[in-house]
Amino acid sequence: MRITGTFIDEISHDIPHQNWGPREWEKDFQYMQAAGIDTVIVIRCGYRKFLTYPSDYLISKHQCYAPPIDLIDLYLTLAERYGMKLYFGLYDSGHYWDTGNLQFEIDANFYVIDEVWKKYGHRTAFKGWYLSTEISRKTKGAIEAFNSLGQMCKQISGNLPVFISPWIDGKKAVMAASGNLTKEDAVSILEHETEWNEIFEGIHQNIDAVAFQDGHIDYHELHDFFSVNKKLASKYNLACWTNAESFDRDMPIKFLPIKFEKLKLKLEAAGKSEYDKAITFEFSHFMSPQSSYIQAHHLYNRYLEYINTI
Amino acid sequence: MRITGTFIDEISHDIPHQNWGPREWEKDFQYMQAAGIDTVIVIRCGYRKFLTYPSDYLISKHQCYAPPIDLIDLYLTLAERYGMKLYFGLYDSGHYWDTGNLQFEIDANFYVIDEVWKKYGHRTAFKGWYLSTEISRKTKGAIEAFNSLGQMCKQISGNLPVFISPWIDGKKAVMAASGNLTKEDAVSILEHETEWNEIFEGIHQNIDAVAFQDGHIDYHELHDFFSVNKKLASKYNLACWTNAESFDRDMPIKFLPIKFEKLKLKLEAAGKSEYDKAITFEFSHFMSPQSSYIQAHHLYNRYLEYINTI
Amino acid sequence: MRITGTFIDEISHDIPHQNWGPREWEKDFQYMQAAGIDTVIVIRCGYRKFLTYPSDYLISKHQCYAPPIDLIDLYLTLAERYGMKLYFGLYDSGHYWDTGNLQFEIDANFYVIDEVWKKYGHRTAFKGWYLSTEISRKTKGAIEAFNSLGQMCKQISGNLPVFISPWIDGKKAVMAASGNLTKEDAVSILEHETEWNEIFEGIHQNIDAVAFQDGHIDYHELHDFFSVNKKLASKYNLACWTNAESFDRDMPIKFLPIKFEKLKLKLEAAGKSEYDKAITFEFSHFMSPQSSYIQAHHLYNRYLEYINTI
Repeated sequence: MRITGTFIDEISHDIPHQNWGPREWEKDFQYMQAAGIDTVIVIRCGYRKFLTYPSDYLISKHQCYAPPIDLIDLYLTLAERYGMKLYFGLYDSGHYWDTGNLQFEIDANFYVIDEVWKKYGHRTAFKGWYLSTEISRKTKGAIEAFNSLGQMCKQISGNLPVFISPWIDGKKAVMAASGNLTKEDAVSILEHETEWNEIFEGIHQNIDAVAFQDGHIDYHELHDFFSVNKKLASKYNLACWTNAESFDRDMPIKFLPIKFEKLKLKLEAAGKSEYDKAITFEFSHFMSPQSSYIQAHHLYNRYLEYINTI
Repeated sequence: MRITGTFIDEISHDIPHQNWGPREWEKDFQYMQAAGIDTVIVIRCGYRKFLTYPSDYLISKHQCYAPPIDLIDLYLTLAERYGMKLYFGLYDSGHYWDTGNLQFEIDANFYVIDEVWKKYGHRTAFKGWYLSTEISRKTKGAIEAFNSLGQMCKQISGNLPVFISPWIDGKKAVMAASGNLTKEDAVSILEHETEWNEIFEGIHQNIDAVAFQDGHIDYHELHDFFSVNKKLASKYNLACWTNAESFDRDMPIKFLPIKFEKLKLKLEAAGKSEYDKAITFEFSHFMSPQSSYIQAHHLYNRYLEYINTI
Repeated sequence: MRITGTFIDEISHDIPHQNWGPREWEKDFQYMQAAGIDTVIVIRCGYRKFLTYPSDYLISKHQCYAPPIDLIDLYLTLAERYGMKLYFGLYDSGHYWDTGNLQFEIDANFYVIDEVWKKYGHRTAFKGWYLSTEISRKTKGAIEAFNSLGQMCKQISGNLPVFISPWIDGKKAVMAASGNLTKEDAVSILEHETEWNEIFEGIHQNIDAVAFQDGHIDYHELHDFFSVNKKLASKYNLACWTNAESFDRDMPIKFLPIKFEKLKLKLEAAGKSEYDKAITFEFSHFMSPQSSYIQAHHLYNRYLEYINTI
C-alpha cells in the first residue's frame, strides 16, 4: 500500500513550525510528487487566531491575525503546477466540541465555507473538503455538526467529496503535552465497532471517506481494528482510507519521525484490509528530504526503496 | 521593531548545548551582525558548578568546575571584532531566591562582580551588566537584592548600565520540565501593574532598563501588558526593552524555534507600544543559520526578508 | 580516559530512530573507528515484538515482526571490516523483571542464545555478550536470572566475556517519559555499596565486566560513586568499565546530545578511579558527525580535539 496523500500541517496544533517560505514549499511539492503523492490536505485553514489565508470574516469577526502570506493560494498554485488534488480543511476555533461550544464552531465554519468557496472554489486543484475537527467516540455529540458541515461543503461545491480523519481511542490516545505515552482505559474492539457504527449511521450521507489515524493502537492490534473500520466503511458506503502517521508515538520526544519498520507494518495492515487509499500525517515534517528533522530524510529514502520493491 | 540584541545562553538552564567551539561562535557573531544585532548579553557567567570563565573565586570557594575554554574572553574578543556591546550576566548559584538563600546569591555575586571587573573590566566591549536571576511577582523579596547587586555593578564600573529581564506571570508561565503548556492562575493585568510598580519603586535607582520576556502571555494579550510595561518603565525612568523570545512555548517539545508569524506579532506589539529596544532569547539556538535546529535557519531567512520590508 | 566502545541502540526504547540503511551504518563505523572505538555492543537483539535479526524462534513463538533487514549480520560484517569486537545484547521482552515475569524473560533468552550462537557464533567479530535488561538495586530479584543467563552465554560460546550495564539509583533516575528531571529519594553511597556488594556476590562467577551508567548522579558525586564501583569490581574480580552517557539528562527535551564539558568531567572521573574501559550510550545518535542531532556533530569535533590533547 503506497502513500498517495499527505496533510499539510499549517496551522499546527503541536508540531513546531519549519518556517518555510514559497521556495521551500515548492521544493516539498516536488519531493511529494517524486514519492507518488497526488493529494494534499490542508489540515485546517485556521486555528484559534492564526490563519492560512486572509479571511475577512475571521479577521473582522473573530479578531484573527492577518497571515504574512496566503498559504491557500500558494498550495493551490503548487497543487496545480504538480498535478495534485487539494482538500481544504475547515476552521478550528479551539473551542472544544465536547464542551457545548459546538454551535460556535458550526456557525463560524458556515461563514468560512462560503468565503473560501467564493475565493478559491474556481481553482482547478480545489477537489474536496476535510472536516478538520478530530472526533472520537467521546465526541459523539458531534454527529449532527459533522453532518451539517459536510452537507454545506457538498451543497456549495457541487458535491465535492468530504472526508474525516478520526482517531481510535486506543492505548496511545493521550494528550500531546502529557508526560505519558499510553493510558489504561483504551477502547475495546467491540466498543469501537458499536460506537462508530452509530457515528457513521449519523453522518454517512454527507461524508465520502473516512481516514482513521493509525497511531493510537499497538502494532499487533492493527489488523483487528482495520478489519472493523473496513467493514463499517463498506456498510455505509464510505471510502476507507488510512491516515498512516509518519511520526513516532512511542518516544518521549513528542514528536519525531517514525521508524520505517513501523510505518511499513501499518501500511501493510491497511493493504491487507483492502483499504482504498493511504494518506499520511504528514510528509513535510516527518518524511521530507528537507525536513528540519534529519531522521525524515532517511525515512524518505527507506520509503522510496520500499515502494520500488512492491 | 528590529531585534538588535541577543542573549548568549551559556551556561544553559534548559536548552541543550550545541557544543560549539571558537570557530562556530565567530561565525555566529557574523550572522548576528548581518541580522542587525549590536548587543550580546551573556545570560549568566555560571550556573551551579558550571562556569563560562575560570573564576578563581568560584572554583576555590564553591567547588565549581574549571571550564574547558574562557568563553567570556572569547565573547569579548568577538564583540570587539564585530563592533558589539557585551552585557555581562551575573552568577546563578541555583539556590533559589525565594527560599531564603538570597544572601548566599548576593554574597557570591559580590565576589564575582569584583573578580570579573578586575579580569575583564578594561575590555572595550564590556558595556553593561545583566542581573541574571529571573524574577517575577512571586519573588518580590528580591527587591533589596536586585537593588544592591545593581548598585555594586554600577559603582565598580563607573556607572555602566544594568538591566533585568523578568517574566510576566501569565498563562504560559509553567516549569520547562513540566508536561503542561499553560496554567489557570495567570496574573491579571491589574495585579501585574500593581506588583511591578512596587518592584520598580524599589529598584529603579540602580537599574537602567527592563526587558520583560514576551512569551508567557497569549498573543492577544500583548498590547495590554506591553502598554502597562511601557507606562511603568516611563514612570521610573527605565528604558523599556522587549525580550522577544524566538522559541515556541506552545509546543510539546520544549523548546524549538518559534513560528515566524508569532515573532512578528510580538515585535509589532512592542513597536506599537514604542519600546526602546528589542533583544531576543536567543539567536544562536533559535534564529541562527547554523543552529542545530534547522527550523532556525528558515526563521533567520524569514526574519531577514521581513526587516528588509519595514 | 578515551571512549573505546559504543552501544548500538537498535531496537531503541526511548531514542527516536534515525532510519539508517546499510550505507549510513557503514559510514558510522568509519566515524567510530576514527574516534578510537574498537567495540560495538548491540544493546538488545529485540524489544517486545521488534527484532534486529530474523529469529525463527521469536517470530513463530512470540509473534515478533520479521525485520526489514538483518541488522546483526550487517553489524558483524561492518565490525569485521573495521576491526571491531561485537558484543551481542539479549532479548528484552518488555515483561518487566520486577513484576514476577522473570522466568518468561529467562526462558525466551535460553532459546535466543542458542539460536543466535548457531546463526552468528562462527563470525569472527562475535566477541562477547551483553545482558541487556538493565537492573538496579530495586531489581535485586534478578540476581539468579543474571547469573543463569551469564552462565548460559559463557557455556555455549566457549567462555566469551559477558557484561552488564546497570544504573545507579541516583537523583536523575526518573522515567524517560516523565516530566521530571530529578527525584528526591536517591540512593546514598552507603546503600549503593551494600546492595551492589550483594548483587556482585551473586553474579560475579558468570559476569566479566560491569559498566555502570554514569548519568544518574550529579557531577560532584561522580568520584565517590566511581570509587565504590571500582572497589567492588576489584573485590569480585570484574573489569570495571564506565558507560559514559553522551546524552544530556538535565534538559527537558529527552534526549539530545550532552554538553562536551559534562562528558569530559565524567570521563576524567572514571580515569581518576582507574577504570578499565569507557564505552558510551551511544555514538550514533549523540556523537556521530552524521547524527540527526546536529549538536552531535559538534560534540564529535570537541571530543576529537580533546583526545588529541591527552
